[in-house]
Amino acid sequence: MTARGFPPAEFAGRIARAQSMMGAAGLGALLLTTEPEVRYFTGFLTRFWESPTRPWFLIVPQSGAPVAVIPSIGEPLMRRSGVADIRSWAAPDLDDDGVSLLAATVRELLGARDAVGLPDGHETHVRMPLADLGRLRDLLPGIEITGDQGILRRLRMVKSAVELEKIETACAIAGRAFARVPEIAREGEALDAVFRRFQMLCLDEGADWVPYLAGGAGPGGYADVISPAAQTPLAQGDVLMLDTGLVFDGFFCDFDRNWSVGQAAGTARATYRRLIEATEAGFDAAKPGATASELHRAMRGLLGGETGAGRLGHGLGMSLTEWPSLIAADDTVLEPGMVLTLEPGLESGGKVMVHEENIVITASGARYLSPRAPETLPEL
Amino acid sequence: MTARGFPPAEFAGRIARAQSMMGAAGLGALLLTTEPEVRYFTGFLTRFWESPTRPWFLIVPQSGAPVAVIPSIGEPLMRRSGVADIRSWAAPDLDDDGVSLLAATVRELLGARDAVGLPDGHETHVRMPLADLGRLRDLLPGIEITGDQGILRRLRMVKSAVELEKIETACAIAGRAFARVPEIAREGEALDAVFRRFQMLCLDEGADWVPYLAGGAGPGGYADVISPAAQTPLAQGDVLMLDTGLVFDGFFCDFDRNWSVGQAAGTARATYRRLIEATEAGFDAAKPGATASELHRAMRGLLGGETGAGRLGHGLGMSLTEWPSLIAADDTVLEPGMVLTLEPGLESGGKVMVHEENIVITASGARYLSPRAPETLPEL
Repeated sequence: MTARGFPPAEFAGRIARAQSMMGAAGLGALLLTTEPEVRYFTGFLTRFWESPTRPWFLIVPQSGAPVAVIPSIGEPLMRRSGVADIRSWAAPDLDDDGVSLLAATVRELLGARDAVGLPDGHETHVRMPLADLGRLRDLLPGIEITGDQGILRRLRMVKSAVELEKIETACAIAGRAFARVPEIAREGEALDAVFRRFQMLCLDEGADWVPYLAGGAGPGGYADVISPAAQTPLAQGDVLMLDTGLVFDGFFCDFDRNWSVGQAAGTARATYRRLIEATEAGFDAAKPGATASELHRAMRGLLGGETGAGRLGHGLGMSLTEWPSLIAADDTVLEPGMVLTLEPGLESGGKVMVHEENIVITASGARYLSPRAPETLPEL
Repeated sequence: MTARGFPPAEFAGRIARAQSMMGAAGLGALLLTTEPEVRYFTGFLTRFWESPTRPWFLIVPQSGAPVAVIPSIGEPLMRRSGVADIRSWAAPDLDDDGVSLLAATVRELLGARDAVGLPDGHETHVRMPLADLGRLRDLLPGIEITGDQGILRRLRMVKSAVELEKIETACAIAGRAFARVPEIAREGEALDAVFRRFQMLCLDEGADWVPYLAGGAGPGGYADVISPAAQTPLAQGDVLMLDTGLVFDGFFCDFDRNWSVGQAAGTARATYRRLIEATEAGFDAAKPGATASELHRAMRGLLGGETGAGRLGHGLGMSLTEWPSLIAADDTVLEPGMVLTLEPGLESGGKVMVHEENIVITASGARYLSPRAPETLPEL
């Protein structure tokens, strides 16, 4: 069984790497507000973020230990997460929801003229009321509140051995659930019931929770890959796709599987086969030193002009999707420890078919984290 | 079976009410970026928001129909949601992820000197990269980007009959799952297995998905209510609590249940009884014209000084938690159609016990949406 949590050295290493980057970037501290950002430096893992009510703040100063400025309801768990310096307030406070406490803490940790970096680039947002961010600026004259210059992105893109183990465990759980789909999906079964039952299979196989399930079903393909499940019964000739992001100990897998309901049509079989070949081309191109755009090009070559609007894969880890993007414009250089999805899609006549696997970059090339899909379209 | 979706009149009414408030507030448009905000005006329901990669924008102008500025991957679903004017781009675009398209759309819909309101107060955040919000401001000289003056808060706090039906359905599903807890929880069963099995029960009883499950177990109470489940087996004398926010057609329930593992100690029974009485006091106080703080005071009177750091309830609907907060400082006046949780807690010696029910304010008082808990602590 995969161990839960992390050894303390994991967080010490992350903090040290961040502090070295902050030194180079001229930042006196990082200010973090979202679930994965706070968890990255503390291990603070809770589903309570589902509630949008309370803001949570973590300050990582350029030297010394992180300081949590959080609602008092989170103090016991943050203490168990190993953060020694916790400043808390009784949230929600309608007049001052942690803002003056945060400002005082920043002032204490930083010099009078210093800069605080918030992640502000692609794939990020600031999880606090915008008016409170304005108040924070007003309370910190002389201190520049600026971007993190991509520090969180660079840190989180490369996974440690312990992180990889958790992602691989999530992949194995999903693999076992996918293998049991014939138990729950057949002609006449409504798609929304299949979605419900599939989430039960994920839990039964060991998922902590199932934050993401998408998919579709239709004759020869599906209309799009983000719509909720319709109540339409599966019919002979439908291609069914299920794509799940389930969580084990705070880490995601993200891959899909396709099935033909009854005997597969020749075109569906051929499309599936091209998607498998494109995935393999992406896998073969995935080596340290290659770029995200090179993986995109390798897959795109097998797909021709029929690929849809989506990218052909992305990073994966503490979030369902992370940097980089497998698109033509992303020049991110791959390094050992990066986890990617390979997600080629083919679109024609308003029908789409998508295949997805998860890989990790190693020193010698790529390794599959998801158990491989069958080479020919399986039939239900 | 509860119908899915909404009649078109629901969205027309929401838009008309928003536009009238925008007129009074001197706003030329609302700019919305988060899942519940975009869904409130469109019905756009997808789990794809779990991916932090892509920003999504909806503009509700002071007159005329809303305009969606969204990644092209969302176009088919947004079209089915009934939005006619959709401007899309191939996201992710690392150079310009929808910002110039959004700016051009705002300029087209608004006068040269006008104001756009974003929700910026308590319980909100702006879901787009902070640097892109800065770029948007730069691209819109003369147009003020400001707060929404609480318009979304006021709109979303009062639920329509169709919304109430969905919340009540979610409550009924959770009620059936809670009734089956004796099937999955007993002495010797590990708490994390109980959490996993309980989510399966929620799905089996009809939940679309289970975004939230918290709880705890320990002798006479639990340490806190936000930690993930430990692998500790349940033991005689433990109080077990499960608190779920499951979703039916995009709407949440949020209530909990407590059980004693084996025979309940007298103190646990007495604590439970006081929580039930506090809930009833909150229920009795919940009438149109009463304030959130009056409900807080009514419950607090039964709890004495031993209530913990949390509030004693909150709004509920498209999000797990919404305005108002049942705290001393919240003067929100209750109106028919508001949905609240009553969530009294008692804390002593580091142990907490919390009870929670869901109610709706009606013209004549309150009505329970959650099936009531037993009057005495049930035993497993």
